[in-house]
Order: sequence, then structure tokens, then C-alpha cells
Amino acid sequence: MKRLFEIDPWLVATHQLDKADRRLQESITAVGNGYMGVRGNFEEGYSGDSLQGTYLGGVWFPDKTRVGWWKIGYPEYFGKVINAPSFLDIGITVNGQRIDLATSQYRDFYLALDLHQGLLKRQFVYIGDDVEVRFEFSRFLSQVIKEAALITVKATVLRGHATIVFDARLNGRVTNEDSNYDERFWVPLDEDAAAKSMQLQTKPNPYGVPQFTVLLKQQLRVKDQPVDGQLTTKSGRLNEQVAVQLDAGQNFQLEKDAIVVTSRDVAPDDQAAVAAQLMKQVTGQSFSAHLADHTAIWDQRWAKSDVVIEGDPAAQQGIRFNIAQLFMTYYGEDKRLNIGPKGFTGEKYGGATYWDTEAFIVPMYLAVTPPEVTRALLQYRHDQLPGAYHNARQQGLAGALYPMVTFNGIECHNEWEITFEEIHRNAAIAFAIYQYTAYTGDESYVNHDGLEVLVGIARFWADRVHFSQRTQQYMIHGVTGPNEYENNVNNNWYTNTMAVWELQYTLERLAKGDTEIVAALAVTDEEKQHWQAIIAHMYYPTDDQLGIFVQQDNFLDKDLRPASTIPVDQRPINQHWSWDRILRSPFIKQADVLQGLYFLNDHFTKAEKERNFDFYEPLTVHESSLSPSIHAILAAELGKMDKATDLYARTARLDLDDYNHDTQDGLHITSMSGSWLAIVQGFAGMRYDHDQLRFHPQLPKNWQRYQFKLNYRGRLLAVDVGKQAKISILAGPALDIVVDDKPLHLEVGETHA
Amino acid sequence: MKRLFEIDPWLVATHQLDKADRRLQESITAVGNGYMGVRGNFEEGYSGDSLQGTYLGGVWFPDKTRVGWWKIGYPEYFGKVINAPSFLDIGITVNGQRIDLATSQYRDFYLALDLHQGLLKRQFVYIGDDVEVRFEFSRFLSQVIKEAALITVKATVLRGHATIVFDARLNGRVTNEDSNYDERFWVPLDEDAAAKSMQLQTKPNPYGVPQFTVLLKQQLRVKDQPVDGQLTTKSGRLNEQVAVQLDAGQNFQLEKDAIVVTSRDVAPDDQAAVAAQLMKQVTGQSFSAHLADHTAIWDQRWAKSDVVIEGDPAAQQGIRFNIAQLFMTYYGEDKRLNIGPKGFTGEKYGGATYWDTEAFIVPMYLAVTPPEVTRALLQYRHDQLPGAYHNARQQGLAGALYPMVTFNGIECHNEWEITFEEIHRNAAIAFAIYQYTAYTGDESYVNHDGLEVLVGIARFWADRVHFSQRTQQYMIHGVTGPNEYENNVNNNWYTNTMAVWELQYTLERLAKGDTEIVAALAVTDEEKQHWQAIIAHMYYPTDDQLGIFVQQDNFLDKDLRPASTIPVDQRPINQHWSWDRILRSPFIKQADVLQGLYFLNDHFTKAEKERNFDFYEPLTVHESSLSPSIHAILAAELGKMDKATDLYARTARLDLDDYNHDTQDGLHITSMSGSWLAIVQGFAGMRYDHDQLRFHPQLPKNWQRYQFKLNYRGRLLAVDVGKQAKISILAGPALDIVVDDKPLHLEVGETHA
Repeated sequence: MKRLFEIDPWLVATHQLDKADRRLQESITAVGNGYMGVRGNFEEGYSGDSLQGTYLGGVWFPDKTRVGWWKIGYPEYFGKVINAPSFLDIGITVNGQRIDLATSQYRDFYLALDLHQGLLKRQFVYIGDDVEVRFEFSRFLSQVIKEAALITVKATVLRGHATIVFDARLNGRVTNEDSNYDERFWVPLDEDAAAKSMQLQTKPNPYGVPQFTVLLKQQLRVKDQPVDGQLTTKSGRLNEQVAVQLDAGQNFQLEKDAIVVTSRDVAPDDQAAVAAQLMKQVTGQSFSAHLADHTAIWDQRWAKSDVVIEGDPAAQQGIRFNIAQLFMTYYGEDKRLNIGPKGFTGEKYGGATYWDTEAFIVPMYLAVTPPEVTRALLQYRHDQLPGAYHNARQQGLAGALYPMVTFNGIECHNEWEITFEEIHRNAAIAFAIYQYTAYTGDESYVNHDGLEVLVGIARFWADRVHFSQRTQQYMIHGVTGPNEYENNVNNNWYTNTMAVWELQYTLERLAKGDTEIVAALAVTDEEKQHWQAIIAHMYYPTDDQLGIFVQQDNFLDKDLRPASTIPVDQRPINQHWSWDRILRSPFIKQADVLQGLYFLNDHFTKAEKERNFDFYEPLTVHESSLSPSIHAILAAELGKMDKATDLYARTARLDLDDYNHDTQDGLHITSMSGSWLAIVQGFAGMRYDHDQLRFHPQLPKNWQRYQFKLNYRGRLLAVDVGKQAKISILAGPALDIVVDDKPLHLEVGETHA
Repeated sequence: MKRLFEIDPWLVATHQLDKADRRLQESITAVGNGYMGVRGNFEEGYSGDSLQGTYLGGVWFPDKTRVGWWKIGYPEYFGKVINAPSFLDIGITVNGQRIDLATSQYRDFYLALDLHQGLLKRQFVYIGDDVEVRFEFSRFLSQVIKEAALITVKATVLRGHATIVFDARLNGRVTNEDSNYDERFWVPLDEDAAAKSMQLQTKPNPYGVPQFTVLLKQQLRVKDQPVDGQLTTKSGRLNEQVAVQLDAGQNFQLEKDAIVVTSRDVAPDDQAAVAAQLMKQVTGQSFSAHLADHTAIWDQRWAKSDVVIEGDPAAQQGIRFNIAQLFMTYYGEDKRLNIGPKGFTGEKYGGATYWDTEAFIVPMYLAVTPPEVTRALLQYRHDQLPGAYHNARQQGLAGALYPMVTFNGIECHNEWEITFEEIHRNAAIAFAIYQYTAYTGDESYVNHDGLEVLVGIARFWADRVHFSQRTQQYMIHGVTGPNEYENNVNNNWYTNTMAVWELQYTLERLAKGDTEIVAALAVTDEEKQHWQAIIAHMYYPTDDQLGIFVQQDNFLDKDLRPASTIPVDQRPINQHWSWDRILRSPFIKQADVLQGLYFLNDHFTKAEKERNFDFYEPLTVHESSLSPSIHAILAAELGKMDKATDLYARTARLDLDDYNHDTQDGLHITSMSGSWLAIVQGFAGMRYDHDQLRFHPQLPKNWQRYQFKLNYRGRLLAVDVGKQAKISILAGPALDIVVDDKPLHLEVGETHA
């Protein structure tokens, strides 16, 4: 655990430049607007250890992965999030001295991310020979004009005389740290000094993946008026210098506006004109007016999603940080995008879409964003159905296999034990359709596009199982379950269970689907009988003596010891143990059997849940950021509130407190819903199976109160859990819910305790 | 199956230049001398599809393998066999036209590898405008001066007048096809036109692997006299041109002698002088005199190893081809070298040493080469013991883990499921010590260096097993058995069985080892007790109903179907099926349980062998070149001579008939012992457990006779199996053996039927 920032309800701020943990600071102070994002890199540059990162949604590169022994069915390339050309740079010299906080003298450093609207502010006083200058920076990526980044820097001379030169740059000479051979992914096409723009293209690839062309354009302003600096260009580089002379007491504020358009939206030949038009929009209004418009959008979002915690300021900050970072990553505007594990905050992992979205983000987004935001996430998968069919075909299998990692529907990860073995993701994608339908009551997706997804997945399962003559049961061999600390196991209980659930749900929905879709899908009676046979005769590993579901066929033969026996200096084990040792160990990375009990919560008895929780949780090292929240929810349900509260702490401030020692690489964006889920589904016990909203509110010992809002079928509900729990409708029609197993009728204006 | 060459007892010859299968021809006509080797590339160049390959024993490059998600215990690099600078080239023009058989007009093509001494001959008549020229080539790599390659080319003008220019080259501008990013592995250091030499170095690497420096030198001769052509150099290139004018009926023969020295033997600064000295040796004697010296060495080898087959000319050719190629790869001269899967015939697979050596080569070499040749193979492993300890440490384990693939003892392959899971190799390395000792009766290795190897391996097994509380037995989870068509399985019967055998053998030998070695090894009583406990309480998967040993815990749950159900157009499955499908299928790549029954032949009853053979062989697709021979041996033992003969056919001419459709990449060198083993251990039933040589000779139906020789404890034995079997001692003291379970006393001069 490492806490660099001060506790505050709406700010993530620090008065320390932590040079040893600069990367961690950069990750935490990343800002984004769903279209693009930038790490908390310094405008003026920084020669110390740093990870430069600017990322554009949906812009990537298929990097060759030659692993020596390529086998049929292996993906051909590893899809990489690439560091995009940067619009951020404003180099600064004072009296000829370059400002570089790694080497310069400074005081009064302050860095603050305002969570309310994703506004990053920074200031410091530069101490030179006979001169002191205060610098103040602000930046945000507009929620109104997605292509726009707005940056200001203000210099105030406190002592002496300063000649300050600002060197505002567009910089295409960027690289990825995560590349095989230090190759560059960007090829400069053109620099246009007159237009103050630069165009680049991703380098060619042999996989038929389109090359991306981007155009960056900048405009400097002083007192809201455009100014022209001295322009120079080099290949992949555009510099614009503005020099000012200031005496003590004088100040000067420079604004840098940047526009980034990509060939995802604008054809390369049109990019210059479109960027000029967008820039005109930007320069037509002051920085503060833009910020006000931008903030108004955030106000609306927070009104539907804020969570208030009394009695635990750290938890309060944690949940708001998570919500803000999630919304900076995705708010459903572009159906071609999804929520990558690092969002716009790092280049690790590759790919942009994992099962994390369906398993962990959907249940939260359903409740805190308008239904169309979640529906966009579902639509994304439908739009990528051809890729899923392709992936299954690559394995010689029928139906649709959604990718573990992708940008475009085609699997783009490079480990066989993940790509064609961690197939449980297919079930999560179907389960999200169920969740959306059950929560919103909107059947239009599941009856139409969603049904195509369900049937594609069902056909995959039906081909992927095999019938074991010896046991006369269906089995699923060769899988990796949610616990990625085991690979290539047989009969992972979770996978088998979810596969059968998916077949059942598909059969059920098929009977209700839109006629023309059902006809087009042409599921034969023979197919249905086969699905029914699988449902009836699936094998599930269980242990009667222990009364548990068994994670996989050979799990109980392991050297079973609780995770508490691992010496503290060997945690996390994935940073200390060989993969061999981890695979053979009994230690579980994240919920596996318990993930099934979480998803299919109403299918199991409390006693079943309790026995399995008590068996598996002690074996769990929670080294996936996705782990603690699911355990917290089950612990709360089982009345283990101390355990739930402990686990909650690991999810709420995972990045702010760098629990997993890896936030320097980027934030754990897709895990950020975990703290919300732990509060809402855990502490408040919210469930929504069977078209019925239910609660079972509990309050963690050290909290005075927590409050959250839910968007549910046209209503805005407020839940307020203090010593007593109060639930009310803020807007929308009356609603019958269940609280602590008792029916409750809600109407606007009434509050029920 | 694809047969490009004519059947002949001592020649592999063809009158066809097969342009579509040029790579296959090149593989089959490769020559080597244990120090270096060269594929059957054409001296004059060839612009058609071709794999250029010159390989120097022990010269390699550690190529980065970045697979995205490197985990602790993964090897850092993939060790690559690199294509070495070439000494082969002699470009030819006739009247200004370049000779290139891919495009030139020609007739009377002939290509022949003389198996007796590894001499490659080629001729063709070039048809130009108004000119016809016969070209005749010879090449061999000397067994006397290992650094020397001798090449002659003779031109005879049949029609017209010819100006012929020979352009003899040293060429360092070579690449690997098997490289990640088309990178070059060689950096030119120097070209010396006066000395007709060129020096190059492998490029730097970040892994601490030494860079190799090589020097190539050439000398042209005409009628045994050195001549100087016109020399030009470029970076990494040296050209020497000789032009002649010939009228019809005239001929001209040019000899190109080449010397290659490497920093493995000669420090870079000394290479020029050493090469000059070696070249002096070469030019001091005629080509034919060198060839005679070279052939004399081969005569001695064949006298101890030839196998004669009557009634099956294809089989006769096959076994001689295999023996010749094996001896061209390794005859024990350099203890730092081993037998790579492709020898000097291709660049695939990487690494130079696999368990193939111990499992498949040692049992043959023991009988056909002097004992010191096999002992050199054992010594190689002892010399790499530090690497084996390193490999185990990388996994957090005690003891020694021999690498699956290596050049220097350090694991250099890049698939986790192989590198730290296919640990059964450790047992084969110990078993080779047992075989050497049992066959030769020489205990000096096992009591000293060999004991260090055995104890290192035993300590590894003792740490690698775990105790399953549930079953109260020791288990080995997370392994890949010899059947690489399953990965990461639990309790592979073969691995568990061989691990226990190794512990037993180590305990047994420890009691007899040299005192100072035993003292230094300091095996504690506690350790011995632990080993004894593992021996006593190891778990072995078995099935009482089927009466078989079970390949691994979940094997019998598979969709068990015989390999005969696979459609012919889907064979080999590794070229048609996804890896997912292969892993989950019941189909076996090579002997697994049966490998154990082969090694520990005297530990099991005939009924046990038969039940397991009848269960597993039908599931086996024999897609490893190592598979058919082991099955042929067991089939013969079980009296299934038809099956044994069928399987023999797949091993004897595996490369000559391109059974696996991959010989174009290089020969299956380490499988070449298979045909010998199938004859000697299979048809002739030779066994040597318990210090007793035993035979149970049988004759395949379609053969009239087979004869082979054995070197056994100071004797040379001849075995002659026709309608009757005759065994005799050609040299050495009397010997008591067992034939068909009956004792037989042999003395020189007597022949026993």
C-alpha cells in the first residue's frame, strides 16, 4: 500500500512531487473524456522516470507475436494500445533555463485532480538564479467537443526579471514501452506550419487491420485571443514558441487548445478541414466558458450516480475517484468503443475489451447511467458477432466465441491458455443480456440483436462440450476459469454451470424472440434437443463430504493450505513465485466458484453459499483487482460484515493506495465498479432477479451512513443507510420493492425507513 | 509420403531436379562432419524456392521472446540455431549468362549423396545459345580436418565455345527464416582480400550469452595447385573470380577449399593464423587424397555399425541413410556438442539438445559406436549441471532441472507448458546413465560425475512432488508428458513412474558411489527418508476395469475414439486441427505410458504390456518422428510382427519418404535411431537389463534377412537373422548371452544358430 494523495471528498491532491513514484502519480492524475485520455504527464516535460501516455479510443496496432511454435488457432497478432501523438507539451525556459522538475529547483508544488469534472490543476514556484516564477496549469478534455483538449499555463514572476519562452508542441515521435523491438508505431505523413497541424498514420501491418490516420492541430490563445507563435516543423514534430518578458509582480497566461481527429470518424483527406472547424468552435469561447459547459455535463452525471459515505473520508474519496475515472473512460457515446482494463491511463494488457465489462461494469452502469449507456455496451458485442464467429471457426468450432481481448471482435491476445481456454467469457456476455433485461425490463434487445448473440454462444457451447462415455455425462475439458492461477483445467464448475445457464436462457428467450430473428436463426429441433440433453446431463464436480462445488476436477488433490500461510514477504505471489508454483498451488486469484454463486445468486441456498465461501475465500489471494468486490458482496449477504468491510477496503482505494503495486502502469479501470457493487449489492444487498428490486441494507461498523442513487425503470431512487435505512423515489412512477424480504410500496415524496 | 530419390543400397540419388520440392531435396542431401554442416544448396546459386543453410556446431543466438505476459520462471530468450556465413558459393556464368537451374535450360541432371562417406555429387548439362557445358560438382566436409570443406566443380564444353567465369564467394549476408523481425544475426568485422578471408561476429545480446566470432577463408586450386582469382570485397562479402575460355571437348576443374574457425576453439585474434595453418594442411594434399583419408574414417565406422537388409531395398537404403546422417551430425569428438533435432540440416526448433538424445540416441550409439562416444553425451549433461540447477532455481525448486531445449544448459525454449512442465526429460537423462552403465558395465561414470547428476535430479523430484492430504499419496501436478498433445496435466503415469524409478536408482547408486563424491553430495538421512516415502506412497493413475495404467488423471473422461476414425484428409492432425481440438482430443502424439513400458521393460508383465499397447496404440497418431519406433519395438515383443513391420516402415524412411510433410525444414536427425532400434530391439528383441545381453529374433514377413553388428563390452558381435538366427563374436572375449530365453555361450570363430 502506498498513499501519495491527501484525503478529500472531491479532490485527489498532493503537495509533494514524488519522484520515486512519479508513474503512480501520473496514473492517478490521468484525465479522459471517453474519446481520448492522457496520463498526468507534465506539460513542460520531465526527465525523471515517467510513462508518457496519450491514448485515443479505438486507435491501436496489431503487433506480430512470433512465439516460436505457432499452432493452429493461435491469434496472429497481439493488439496493442498505442501511445498516440501528444498534444500536451508546452516546454518552458526561464532566462534560458529549461524547467524540468526532475532537475530544477522548486517549491510549493501542488497537484490536484478535481473529481467532479476531471480537471487537473498543478502549480509550483520555480526557483532560478535571481528569479522566482509561479507556474499554474489547468487541463481538461472536453465533454462537449470530444476532440478538444484545453490547457492553460500561467506564469507569475515573484522575484527578479524573467524571459520566459513557451514552446507548445505537437509530438508524433512517441513510442510504446510495451513493444517487442522498440519499434515505432507511427509514421509521420505531414506537418503544416500554417495550419499548426500534423498528420500521422499507424505503420502498415500484414493482418488486414486498417491503418489509423490522425491529425493534431493546436492553437495558442492569450486572454482568449488567438496568437501566433514562432513555428518550426520537423518530421513528426511541430513547435510553436512564444516568448514573454515579465518583471516581478507581472503575470502571463497562455492557453493551448488542441484538436485531435482520427480516421475512425473523419477520412484522412477531410481531417484538416474538420479540425479547423472544431478549432473554430473552441476558439469561439473562453476557457472558462468551455469549462462551465463541460462541468454542466458532469453535474448531470453526478446527480444520478454520486455516492455519499459518512464516517470514512478515505472510502468517500475512493468511490468518487472510481466513478469519475469510469465516466472519463466511457459514457456510451461511441458504440464502437468499450472499457479497457487501463482505460486511457496506460498501455499495458493490450486490447480494449475484456469480459470485465460484462461481468463487473454492466451491473453498475445499469444503475448509475441512463439505460442507453449499458445498451451501447451490449450493442458493441452484437456488432462484433462476426468476429466471434471467426474466433470459433479458428478453433474448428461452431457458433460464436467472443474474444478474451479485442479491439474489433477478433481475438488479439497471445496466450493459448487464455485465448481459447478462458471461454467462460462467453457466458458473461450472455449474462449481461440477462442482467440488462432483468434490470431495465426492456426486452427489445434480447428479442432481437441479443438473441443472435445468445444463439451464437449457445451453438458454441453445444459444440465445445464433449460426451464422456465412461460417465455418461457432458463435460468441458481444457478451460481456464476465472481463476487464472490455474490453466487448462477440466470441468471448471463455474464454466460448466454458466454454459448450462446460457443454454437454458437461450432456449427460454428463443421462445419469445422476434419472429423474423427466430426464423433467421433457424435453430433446429435437433439442436434444441441437443441443448436440452446437455442441460440434463452436464457433469459438475462436487464434493459431498465438504458439501461444496469443486473448482475443477483435480482441485481437491492439491496441497490445500489457506492463503494466510503464505509469508507476507511473498505477497503478491504473482510478483514472487514462478508461474509453475502458482499453477500448482491451491491459491485462487479471484472468485471462481464464488463468481457463479454471485451471478446466479438466486439459484443457490444460503447454506450452499456459506459452505463454498468458507472453503474458497481462505484460499483466495485476491490478486485480481476484480476479486475483493465479489467476495465483499457474498460476505455481506452471508452476514460476515467484518469480512465484507475488509474486502471493500481493498477495492475502494485499489489505485489510490496502490494495493497491487502496479498502478504505476495505469489505473484498474474495469475494477473500479467493484467498490460501487460492494456498497450497493454488498452492504445494501440490492438484487434485481425476477423483475423485482430487493434490498437488505446493512451498515459497516465504522461508517455513520452511506447514500446512493439508482436509476431503475424510469425512476431515480435514493437509498440512505444510516442507523436506519431509508429508500425513496426522487423521480418517476410508484414502485413496489422488497426490503429485508418484506414488500414496500414507494411513491415520490415519501421516504420509507 | 513423397519419394524424390531412387532406391539404392548406398546412394540417395535422383535424375530429377524437383523445383516444387527443392527444399526437401536440400534437406536430404545435406552433409556434415560433426563440426559443421550444409544443406544441399547449389554452389552456383538458385533463385527458386530454397532454404539456404550452413550451420556451425555450438554457434547460436539468444533471440528475445517477448510474449506479452512474461511470468516468473519463463526463460528470457529463445536459443536459435543460426544460419552461418556460407563458404559454399561458386557463382557461374557461361558467355555472360548466369547459371541458375531455376531459370536456365539444362538436361541430364543428376544429384547423388553417397551414404558411405557423405559425399555429395551433382551434374547437369547447361544448354545455352550455341553452347552446351557439362558441370560436375563434388563436396564433402572432412572428417580429418573438421574445419575444412572441399568442393570441386568441373566444366566440360560439349558444344560451341564458352567463356566461363567462376565467382567463388564467402558470404556473410545470411539471414534466418526463423527470426522474429527479419533481423540479421551476423555483424561483419573484417574482409581481408589478401588472405581471402572474412571475419564476422554474432550481434550483441542482453542475456550474457557470449558472442561468437567466426573466420572463413577460401583457396582456389586448379590441378591441385593454388591459384589466385580476381578478388573484391564488400562488407560481409568476399568474391574471387576465375575466368576460362574453353572450346568444345575441353574441360576445366576448379577446386574450392574452405576453412571455418570459430571462437569456440580459437580466440578471434588467432583465427587468421590458425585458418592459414589449416589451409596449408588442406592445400598440401590433393582433393582425392583428402577424400581417401576421409573415407577411411567412414570405413571404420561402418565396419562397426552397418545394417544389411535383404528383401527390402527401400528399408536397406533407409537404415543406411539414417546411420550416415547421424554420424555426420555427431560422433562424440566435441563434448560441448550434442545432437540437435535437425542436426546441421535446418534451423527449426531452436536449441541443440533435447531429451531425444538420451531417450532415442543413447541406446543405439551404445551399440554402434565406441563407448566413449556415448560417454561424451553423458558428460555433456554433467558439464551442464550448473545450468540445470539454475533452471530449477528459476522455478523456485531445489535440485537440477535439465532443460527441454538448450545450447548451454540453460533452458532456452519459450513455451511454459514445455519448459517447466515437460519435466519427464529429467528422468530420461538419469535413465541414460543407467543404460550406459548396464550396457557397458563401466561404473566409473555413475559412481562419480553421473552420481552428481542423479542426486541433482532426485532432489528436484523430491521438491516437485506434493503430498495430497485427501488421498494420502504423493502426486505430480502440472506436467506435460511425452505426449505433447496434452499440456499441463496431473499425474502423468509416465512421469510419476520414471520419477520414482529415478529416486530408487539414485538411492541404489548412492550406496555404491565414490566416497568423496558421496561425501560432497551430503545427502542427509532425512532426504533419503523423504525419497523413500515418495517411492512408497506415489500415486499412479490406473484403471482396474481396463487393466491399464492411465496416461493422466482425466484421460479416460475424454471422448475416446481410435485414431482410425480421423478422416484421412485431416491427417496429420497438427497440420489440420486447432491446438484446442488437439489438446482435448484423445489422440496421442507419441508413446507416453508405452514409453515407460519400453524404458522399464523388465518391470512389467507381458499381459500388462499387451493391455496397455492394445489400449493406447490405436489412439496414437504417431505425429512425432519419435513415435513409431518405440511402438514397433513393443509390438515385436508382443508378437504383433505385422504391426511392428508397419510401424518400422514409418521410421526407416521418415525423411526419405517425407512421411510427416515437414522434411523440407530439415531432417529428423534424433529420430533416425528409431529404425535401428526397431530392428535391433524390435525384430531382434535385443535387451540388456541386468548385465545380460538377450535376444528374441524374429524376421519381418517380407524380408529375407537382416544383419547388424553390436559393440558390447569389448566385443564386436554379428547378428544375422534369416530363416534362422545366427549370432557370433567377430572380435573380443567369449560371452554368455540369452537367446529366446535360453543361455548361449559365444566364442570368436563360432556361429550359433
